[in-house]
Amino acid sequence: MTAGKPITCRAAIAWEAGKPLSIETVEVAPPKAGEVRIKISSTGVCHTDAYTLSGADSEGVFPVIFGHEGAGVVESVGEGVTSVKAGDHVIPLYTAECRECKFCKSNKTNLCSKVRETQGRGLMPDNTSRFTCGGKQIFHYMGCSSEYTVVCEVSVAKIAKDAPLEKVCLLGCGITTGYGAVTHTAKVVKGDSVAVFGMGGVGLSVIQGAKQAGANPIIGIDINHKKEKLAKEMGCTLFIDSKDLPEGKTIQQHLVEITDGGLDYTFDCTGNVNVMRAALEACHKGWGESIIIGVAAAGQEIKTRPFQLVTGRVWRGSAFGGVKGRTELPGLVQDYMTGKLKIDEFITHRFSLDDINKAFDAMHDGDCIRAIISY
Amino acid sequence: MTAGKPITCRAAIAWEAGKPLSIETVEVAPPKAGEVRIKISSTGVCHTDAYTLSGADSEGVFPVIFGHEGAGVVESVGEGVTSVKAGDHVIPLYTAECRECKFCKSNKTNLCSKVRETQGRGLMPDNTSRFTCGGKQIFHYMGCSSEYTVVCEVSVAKIAKDAPLEKVCLLGCGITTGYGAVTHTAKVVKGDSVAVFGMGGVGLSVIQGAKQAGANPIIGIDINHKKEKLAKEMGCTLFIDSKDLPEGKTIQQHLVEITDGGLDYTFDCTGNVNVMRAALEACHKGWGESIIIGVAAAGQEIKTRPFQLVTGRVWRGSAFGGVKGRTELPGLVQDYMTGKLKIDEFITHRFSLDDINKAFDAMHDGDCIRAIISY
Repeated sequence: MTAGKPITCRAAIAWEAGKPLSIETVEVAPPKAGEVRIKISSTGVCHTDAYTLSGADSEGVFPVIFGHEGAGVVESVGEGVTSVKAGDHVIPLYTAECRECKFCKSNKTNLCSKVRETQGRGLMPDNTSRFTCGGKQIFHYMGCSSEYTVVCEVSVAKIAKDAPLEKVCLLGCGITTGYGAVTHTAKVVKGDSVAVFGMGGVGLSVIQGAKQAGANPIIGIDINHKKEKLAKEMGCTLFIDSKDLPEGKTIQQHLVEITDGGLDYTFDCTGNVNVMRAALEACHKGWGESIIIGVAAAGQEIKTRPFQLVTGRVWRGSAFGGVKGRTELPGLVQDYMTGKLKIDEFITHRFSLDDINKAFDAMHDGDCIRAIISY
Repeated sequence: MTAGKPITCRAAIAWEAGKPLSIETVEVAPPKAGEVRIKISSTGVCHTDAYTLSGADSEGVFPVIFGHEGAGVVESVGEGVTSVKAGDHVIPLYTAECRECKFCKSNKTNLCSKVRETQGRGLMPDNTSRFTCGGKQIFHYMGCSSEYTVVCEVSVAKIAKDAPLEKVCLLGCGITTGYGAVTHTAKVVKGDSVAVFGMGGVGLSVIQGAKQAGANPIIGIDINHKKEKLAKEMGCTLFIDSKDLPEGKTIQQHLVEITDGGLDYTFDCTGNVNVMRAALEACHKGWGESIIIGVAAAGQEIKTRPFQLVTGRVWRGSAFGGVKGRTELPGLVQDYMTGKLKIDEFITHRFSLDDINKAFDAMHDGDCIRAIISY
């Protein structure tokens, strides 16, 4: 029984931006009131981790333990925690769900405000970290790249015990983000036309959500033709290599032409602001909606002529697919277990914690959708 | 009986950009098949007329007869016209409603495509104009600044005969544009918070629509404090002179502060792309929506950080308030007749056709909301 005591374990620490992670021994403090300590089983490595590691994220703090796409088992809970107990299988949430704040009560958004402010600074709500290494405080970033982590109770989704943690961890970010953007944000329905920019884990999940919704056509766009095979498996009806367009055409012009006026819904899963513009301008006049999912580099801005909006296009965004984690992730886990939701196909690489830097390197491999770290 | 014959009448012609209009005698050809010739009774002068006259509108064509906010009586109809007849009272529509095109059938937009392409070039669908002056072809711009004009049947809303044409002409553009943006585009409901940028005819109509919907607060913003009185009469609960903000605050920062996080809906009625950005960024995280109504100068672009959208704000636009003219304008006319919709308060200046240049000049007068030309 370790409840109430620190646990010593291994973790991948990013000491500074732009440098490889190093595997260190860290001390993980026990959960305080309202907190939960989790033994992480597996973690997906997401482009957002790589983005912050690169130093381009102006809000990145170091030293930090990355990882925000994990799954594990509750080791112990702090005072007052009632929704989970030791032994429960869980997915930590970077988008909390307190069910009490203005945002949660609005029923208009999943962006809970409860722990947002301290989480953004890599800290728990009491303004301290639960991680130390050699006496030095290490910041949280959801802290899934460690064998143990501590998160707030409002940031824990309890899931079925029979779900494989080394797979459903991907519901902690990428797959839910793409899938939810279709079902929750855009609310695509049968017969809608859809185009998806960027065939990474998020974009492919948009494709699978669009297919389930009955969208047609479902156009996948990437600069890497290697993505075509998996995109088609997920439900993409037409793959476009955007490096290979008809002479003199922009991708938005080409899409508007081949779809008789543009798409009902487009999704940016690239984080590139020029692609975001193309995605908006590829929408059908009068009703087309473009959903920004990708995270842009610091300081980057989206631009378009206001006429694009005045003539009926809508520009919106989606974070964690608009999904309320504690309420809805258990159902998505069930959807995976019953075969409705695909996850296995996304897992192209697996590494041990010792090889975590290889997982970051693998992202530059055209065949890599998701690399998973297991502890 | 003039049907089938040209009519000679007076019209205000803009021979070239940036020059005063001149009153000329023009010949108005009879309506061809599917067209309607209207004796215009009154016309509001709108900023869009002034914008095109200035030369800033890259799609402006000259010589042209301006005016797109008129009302009149059908003089004669062309072959096959069934929905109106001589003697009917009507409002010409710059946003047609054919009820047959993809857009009309979608039930998602009021942007009918039927006559759009030729209308944008100042011509009737057969690629000719019905106006000539001294043998020279004069372009249409809706052509309401003439005693007679010809428009397509799909561009004519039939209204009640007891409605005063010299007032309800304003439903042909400004009032419907602002009011519909609230009721049709934003769909504001009781208790929503609203901010409106620009207290001209459109902005004041947004205010009156927001008041009817039960919005609170309703914040009106202008750089001219003279607009406060009428804004308050229309239902504005707080007027902000944006030249007089707290030290170091932008208007969006100020609005977010005083509304505990931002507005549910904001409306740009200025056409200024920097104001459009402020309007978006003044929206509440998670659900706030900003509606662009104003027409920006050629080449101008809107910009923001994509994070604004990813965190739940929505950017959209509205043209003619999302209103389907033939179907819905008769009802708005009735709303005016029963006192539900205010029009009289908007009419601050009246001129004869001879003084039309004074009407354009009056727009620079801080007390001017709408100047009406009567024939």
